[in-house]
Amino acid sequence: MKNLGILLFPNFELLDVCGPAEMFGVVPEHFKLVTVAQQRGLVASTQGIEVMAQYSTEDCPALDILMVPGGMGTRTEVDNRTLLSWLAERSAQVQLILSVCTGALLLAKAGLLDNRNATSNKRAWELTAIHGPDVRWVTEARWVDDGNLVTSSGVSAGIDMALHVIERYAGEAVAEKVANRTEYKWNRDPNWDPFAMINGLT
Amino acid sequence: MKNLGILLFPNFELLDVCGPAEMFGVVPEHFKLVTVAQQRGLVASTQGIEVMAQYSTEDCPALDILMVPGGMGTRTEVDNRTLLSWLAERSAQVQLILSVCTGALLLAKAGLLDNRNATSNKRAWELTAIHGPDVRWVTEARWVDDGNLVTSSGVSAGIDMALHVIERYAGEAVAEKVANRTEYKWNRDPNWDPFAMINGLT
Repeated sequence: MKNLGILLFPNFELLDVCGPAEMFGVVPEHFKLVTVAQQRGLVASTQGIEVMAQYSTEDCPALDILMVPGGMGTRTEVDNRTLLSWLAERSAQVQLILSVCTGALLLAKAGLLDNRNATSNKRAWELTAIHGPDVRWVTEARWVDDGNLVTSSGVSAGIDMALHVIERYAGEAVAEKVANRTEYKWNRDPNWDPFAMINGLT
Repeated sequence: MKNLGILLFPNFELLDVCGPAEMFGVVPEHFKLVTVAQQRGLVASTQGIEVMAQYSTEDCPALDILMVPGGMGTRTEVDNRTLLSWLAERSAQVQLILSVCTGALLLAKAGLLDNRNATSNKRAWELTAIHGPDVRWVTEARWVDDGNLVTSSGVSAGIDMALHVIERYAGEAVAEKVANRTEYKWNRDPNWDPFAMINGLT
């Protein structure tokens, strides 16, 4: 059973958090979810729905997996040195780091993606060069698995990435069970990415 | 701009709420989201993520659209007469009633689906006959649009239904924009439903 910590910050993108959380949360025998923010308490998504951060970064328990969502709030958090330091420190302690959407920008700014393969949201692609000049950004990808680091493309792509991570930890049959239970059509090809073209990147 | 109220109850299914909320929340010029539960405060999903109910059923503002999610909690709420009465009362006042997954069972139990076309989760299909004997249940459907009532199949199907509702209110171009912004592959065919077969219903 893996402790999976999900970072929250003001103006996070709701589905970046709740898409993967649904998938991981359907198999509690494999993953225990905890939410963490700089301060414990309610954190508002850009969509207006407020989610509880059960822990502060100060009192967050030991994690096996750390997931960083994206959203408009990343534009502020890229300058939050306290949070970036915490990300760098915790990332060194976990076995797997995940990001969804522009969450990759926070990992990049924390120096965690240098010389690594990673992807991010396709609508805000220009930010990848600004915040991660030394990252090997993959333009066309639903998600990128680089060992102890798995980054996904925008918003919904986090759901496909989560199923991939479930497959890594618990096998294909379990991942398929999760997709079927949630009546989700899993996009299983990490290279499937029509949104790169839609956003003029290919 | 439509006021869209999302009902929460203990053990709601996280993505039933947050999938549609993401889609509607991306176009705040068309939809204003509010969350409501029997009591104001934090409500825990089955997946462990806690979401804030901003209003109680007592002080909930006037709504244009009411959305009822599903989840394990519906097995308890089908016997919650206070909540079912509120659902019946509010449903008479709104222009559109939505359900995701087993949320349809609560609408059925409140008498709102009698002689109407509706669908629900495919894994828990046996509950449809128990709680809605007089409903015209549609076995194979991603969602069913019956005018002022739109019901979706399980969990992820709510996302496709939400895009359909966005299309109804704001047009196809806006719905497509939302799907592209969230990098979501919209399943646009209401009759597309492989999960009916997977669950032995066809």
